[in-house]
Amino acid sequence: MIKKLRKCNIVKSVLFPIFATLLLFVILKSAEAGDPTGITTNTEDSKGIKSSLNLAWILLCAFLVFNMQAGFSFLGAGFLQRKNTLNYLTMTYMDFCVGSFIYWAFGFALMFGGSFLASGLDKGNSFIGFSGFFLMGNAHDFYTLAIWLYQVMFACATCTIVAGAVAERFKLHAHLLYSVLLCGILYPIYGHWVWGGGWLANLPIGAGFKDFAGSGVVHGMGGMVALVGAWMVGPRFGKYNSDGTPNIIHGHNLSYVILGTLFLIFGWFGFNVGSTLSVSDFSISVIAVNMFLAIITGAITLLYVSYIATGKSDITMACNGSLAGCVAITASGAYIPPWAAVVIAIVAGFILRSCLYFVEFKLRIDDPIGAIAVHGANGLWGLLSVGIFADGSYLGVKGLITGSGWQLLAQLIGCVTLIVWTFGVGFLIFFLLEKTIGLRVPIKEEIAGIDAYEHGMSCYQSS
Amino acid sequence: MIKKLRKCNIVKSVLFPIFATLLLFVILKSAEAGDPTGITTNTEDSKGIKSSLNLAWILLCAFLVFNMQAGFSFLGAGFLQRKNTLNYLTMTYMDFCVGSFIYWAFGFALMFGGSFLASGLDKGNSFIGFSGFFLMGNAHDFYTLAIWLYQVMFACATCTIVAGAVAERFKLHAHLLYSVLLCGILYPIYGHWVWGGGWLANLPIGAGFKDFAGSGVVHGMGGMVALVGAWMVGPRFGKYNSDGTPNIIHGHNLSYVILGTLFLIFGWFGFNVGSTLSVSDFSISVIAVNMFLAIITGAITLLYVSYIATGKSDITMACNGSLAGCVAITASGAYIPPWAAVVIAIVAGFILRSCLYFVEFKLRIDDPIGAIAVHGANGLWGLLSVGIFADGSYLGVKGLITGSGWQLLAQLIGCVTLIVWTFGVGFLIFFLLEKTIGLRVPIKEEIAGIDAYEHGMSCYQSS
Amino acid sequence: MIKKLRKCNIVKSVLFPIFATLLLFVILKSAEAGDPTGITTNTEDSKGIKSSLNLAWILLCAFLVFNMQAGFSFLGAGFLQRKNTLNYLTMTYMDFCVGSFIYWAFGFALMFGGSFLASGLDKGNSFIGFSGFFLMGNAHDFYTLAIWLYQVMFACATCTIVAGAVAERFKLHAHLLYSVLLCGILYPIYGHWVWGGGWLANLPIGAGFKDFAGSGVVHGMGGMVALVGAWMVGPRFGKYNSDGTPNIIHGHNLSYVILGTLFLIFGWFGFNVGSTLSVSDFSISVIAVNMFLAIITGAITLLYVSYIATGKSDITMACNGSLAGCVAITASGAYIPPWAAVVIAIVAGFILRSCLYFVEFKLRIDDPIGAIAVHGANGLWGLLSVGIFADGSYLGVKGLITGSGWQLLAQLIGCVTLIVWTFGVGFLIFFLLEKTIGLRVPIKEEIAGIDAYEHGMSCYQSS
Repeated sequence: MIKKLRKCNIVKSVLFPIFATLLLFVILKSAEAGDPTGITTNTEDSKGIKSSLNLAWILLCAFLVFNMQAGFSFLGAGFLQRKNTLNYLTMTYMDFCVGSFIYWAFGFALMFGGSFLASGLDKGNSFIGFSGFFLMGNAHDFYTLAIWLYQVMFACATCTIVAGAVAERFKLHAHLLYSVLLCGILYPIYGHWVWGGGWLANLPIGAGFKDFAGSGVVHGMGGMVALVGAWMVGPRFGKYNSDGTPNIIHGHNLSYVILGTLFLIFGWFGFNVGSTLSVSDFSISVIAVNMFLAIITGAITLLYVSYIATGKSDITMACNGSLAGCVAITASGAYIPPWAAVVIAIVAGFILRSCLYFVEFKLRIDDPIGAIAVHGANGLWGLLSVGIFADGSYLGVKGLITGSGWQLLAQLIGCVTLIVWTFGVGFLIFFLLEKTIGLRVPIKEEIAGIDAYEHGMSCYQSS
Repeated sequence: MIKKLRKCNIVKSVLFPIFATLLLFVILKSAEAGDPTGITTNTEDSKGIKSSLNLAWILLCAFLVFNMQAGFSFLGAGFLQRKNTLNYLTMTYMDFCVGSFIYWAFGFALMFGGSFLASGLDKGNSFIGFSGFFLMGNAHDFYTLAIWLYQVMFACATCTIVAGAVAERFKLHAHLLYSVLLCGILYPIYGHWVWGGGWLANLPIGAGFKDFAGSGVVHGMGGMVALVGAWMVGPRFGKYNSDGTPNIIHGHNLSYVILGTLFLIFGWFGFNVGSTLSVSDFSISVIAVNMFLAIITGAITLLYVSYIATGKSDITMACNGSLAGCVAITASGAYIPPWAAVVIAIVAGFILRSCLYFVEFKLRIDDPIGAIAVHGANGLWGLLSVGIFADGSYLGVKGLITGSGWQLLAQLIGCVTLIVWTFGVGFLIFFLLEKTIGLRVPIKEEIAGIDAYEHGMSCYQSS
Repeated sequence: MIKKLRKCNIVKSVLFPIFATLLLFVILKSAEAGDPTGITTNTEDSKGIKSSLNLAWILLCAFLVFNMQAGFSFLGAGFLQRKNTLNYLTMTYMDFCVGSFIYWAFGFALMFGGSFLASGLDKGNSFIGFSGFFLMGNAHDFYTLAIWLYQVMFACATCTIVAGAVAERFKLHAHLLYSVLLCGILYPIYGHWVWGGGWLANLPIGAGFKDFAGSGVVHGMGGMVALVGAWMVGPRFGKYNSDGTPNIIHGHNLSYVILGTLFLIFGWFGFNVGSTLSVSDFSISVIAVNMFLAIITGAITLLYVSYIATGKSDITMACNGSLAGCVAITASGAYIPPWAAVVIAIVAGFILRSCLYFVEFKLRIDDPIGAIAVHGANGLWGLLSVGIFADGSYLGVKGLITGSGWQLLAQLIGCVTLIVWTFGVGFLIFFLLEKTIGLRVPIKEEIAGIDAYEHGMSCYQSS
């Protein structure tokens, strides 16, 4: 009873006042405005129609990316035990909601302020942005709103990637608090450096750091926060024997893994082709085809490699192979030729396998869905591969295959920055949470299943 | 045996002759035509390209809305018992099919005849339309067809909302007959008053009744028909004890509830942004963002409120909170500022909780999926909220916050009309069905599970 | 152990060298290029915007068609036994990947070479194409890439249709090898004759063979290869008694059947409306509406027909009815008036029922998901129906109802060609596979479930 009250008090005394104050602030401040209804645009001439088309493109791609949420939810749920299904689905659904709210309040402003990407995003420096809070003022503009809707899907994907790695023992409300910090600080500040006109995009070496659709910003960060989180919360009960050897904990419904993978791919098309923010950029074709080649190559690689290694045709590895390929190609988009997409995905497949082994057997970190290997390791590989395979055909980005090493250097700088930033701030976040409300559910709950304790119900009924 | 024949005879002697006659009529009458292939449009100039773009927009949004069907199906199925899964999925899939057929035959004509919205829709008065039957004649036009495809998804959503509230005891074929009447009479006539140029849209008080994308026309009506239906068919066996206290009947697969919610949201984007019928209306950005804010706010509100109340994190409540927010925001679309979307969704969350309690404990009506609270109560709240929060930035609609009360009055008139019309005609429909083929499956079937009896199979096999 | 090595050796000694050589070839040859980034197009004027719009349309429709993969996967998995769920999902996911790779390597070049449909497709004759291999050279062009992405989804759908008919006893790796041959030879060559400017499209009888979006090329072929495959691999253990009477083998999760159907329909919209490759073709409206009418009519027909016949409301039959209607309408798209879509779907429903019976009871071929009836028989019916119902309003295609029989003759020629080609080459493929690696899993595996043996895991865990 006391514990229940204590838990509630955290919500009441921390989250509620924050939300209420923020909301009041917005209501009081929402006087001026940009051009929300596009009234200043003539939609009859070519220019206006082009704007319409690009607006529709951004929105439709945002809707597609929303499907990735269904993808993460079901991919992860399938890999977990029956008794924690609802807990995981609550984590993924609610971190999406909470993260989005924070990204509306200030994440977006920190990330894109000063980028001049759209109306109302005109204040910021190389390290941080500070305009567009709550999409108020001039940011209440049709184009800014569309960009926000597209970008919020990215921020939340980052959140959700972590949920799978810490699943089956992490406290729901700790996860939601960390989501607030991730979408409010960790993600947008690094994002500002890369996409908001910050210092990484403008390195003084003749080549800015490039991350086309977020191999690093989204997946690399998600995967590395997952590493920190999974390490700090510790492995699940029963995952490791006393001699340090791991046990297999079977997923309860592997058909959900395939369902999730298909959702993720469907959404990922929007994730990558929408990142041009424009249909007038005909490179959307190359981007889509490169991504598709990476998906199929990743799956083929992993299916056959694991078949040769074990004699079994492991479809869950093939699915993860597709996703690893997808993560890796996300940085390079239109910068590379199709054959490079195939090579990148093959390498991504081997990185995935090695990293899965390394994390489970050497680091002894328990990552139930493989988020560290799929998103973390391959996010970094994706960033580096731009510096290797970019052929100069798109925006003049030139990798090693054109004989230039500057881009690879820029990518290395971006990678190192990402690692340091994510591990540093990520550690701090989890450390603070550990010291306050704690990261881990009581062992009793973990063994009996979190659904019954935290959610008061079971996902499945046999009658 | 006799009963089987009797059941079949209803189908044979009522539905078959109707369908056959209608079809013959169409084949014989389909001589004249509008412009189905757009041959009269020059697609090379700006005007033609704008038409192409808007046509693509309407179609793509219609495809998105189709996903709501998957959403309703799985959301509902998850909340029900294993033994009735197939029955419910049959209801949702088939009411969609039957309802669409009727909406093609005459529902659309009654609703949009006289609206002059597209070719062939030129006959009708303030109370009812009468052109566009079977999309024949001048209605066989590319633009009219696109509008129909978009609108038929709305009509069927209204049908399907009811299925969940009466699930687990309603007769399938009674449900399909009521769907015929809903999509053929109840829905289109009210729809005509609001969207087809009818009297509610043109109230003589300086402000017409506004329901942007169907909080009232679709969700309010669906929710209130659900109330009538669930009341008349009575609660499920075992739902209420002899002293009137309700029992909990657990859903058999709550992961389907989350899956369904995600499908619904994905489809709902099309539902709301497509209602502009045009990409040239840049307000699609505001509409999408407002809707998204309502989704996340609804979920956050319900999760934390139910957490404080019960100590449990109820994801099904959070999902219903998102949907309640979505229902409520559907009327206001671009009329309101973003902060109002948040406020509307918070209120929607509290309305949802109160209404769930009121229906279950006070009215003692058994609504397994909460359709009455989610769609009915919040549909009405959505209509009213336009009259409160509209800020005048879109089409000049001004709510209380601008100091004008006329819009709120118009909304009240629309609400009262909706309630009277739906309860009146809805009661009549269910009464007629009760007196003819009966509303409820035999108690033996209900206890053993309708799947085994009506469908001759079970949804799940353990081997 | 030896067997395991032998199995691996097939992969190692056959597939790997092929893939490696092909990849090396591409890397070495990828010098010249078309216009991947659309740099030569002015995107500011009407012509450029029109190109943007059509490019976006093709890509978005390709993404939609991708959903059919999820549809086939879950539709089929639901109809199968628990113990083979993963095996089937592996088949559908991996044939998609392997088939796509081959279609990239040379399938597309054989099919569209010489069609002049896009840049780099300029070499080929009436029987086969030979340009566009690996999308290299001039085929590395934004428009060609988009066409490829759209077409690869069609090729893979053909592959996957077969998987369901041979499920629960076919060897995974034999299925993948046959997918290589289907996507590399069988499909693209017939496809070239119909869509690549080949002889069937240019019959010297005044009317070319017409298959708008692939009733024959995709579904008819898939269904007939399924017939050959299911016949050659033989029925599942326990399907037929010694006296030749069939037993029912229940599907393990029929809710997946409805989920799959909804995914398929959602994707099918893209399949049909995208086949115009252009939004400027306003017939996309007619196409979408005709398809939708076929979906609902097919379901209504089958539900009521099976209800009258058996007294049960069989939702799986209704789903298959929708798909049968969809298959049949796919050939006729915009050629026919809406009432004809309804008639075609009703006939499709009866063909489905008769064919299901004929295949199961007369031919005694075991087709667990009904692919032969849904895709094969109705694919042929779809082709013929163009020759009957085309009303001359679109591209001047005139069927019997306009008083002309030439189109029907052309359709008959196309049908006969399809049957001869598919049965002939299909038989050869399965015969070769049978003689080398074998078609069928050992009886021990089949009885115990293929998941445990081939995949080393079970789809579901009860804990």
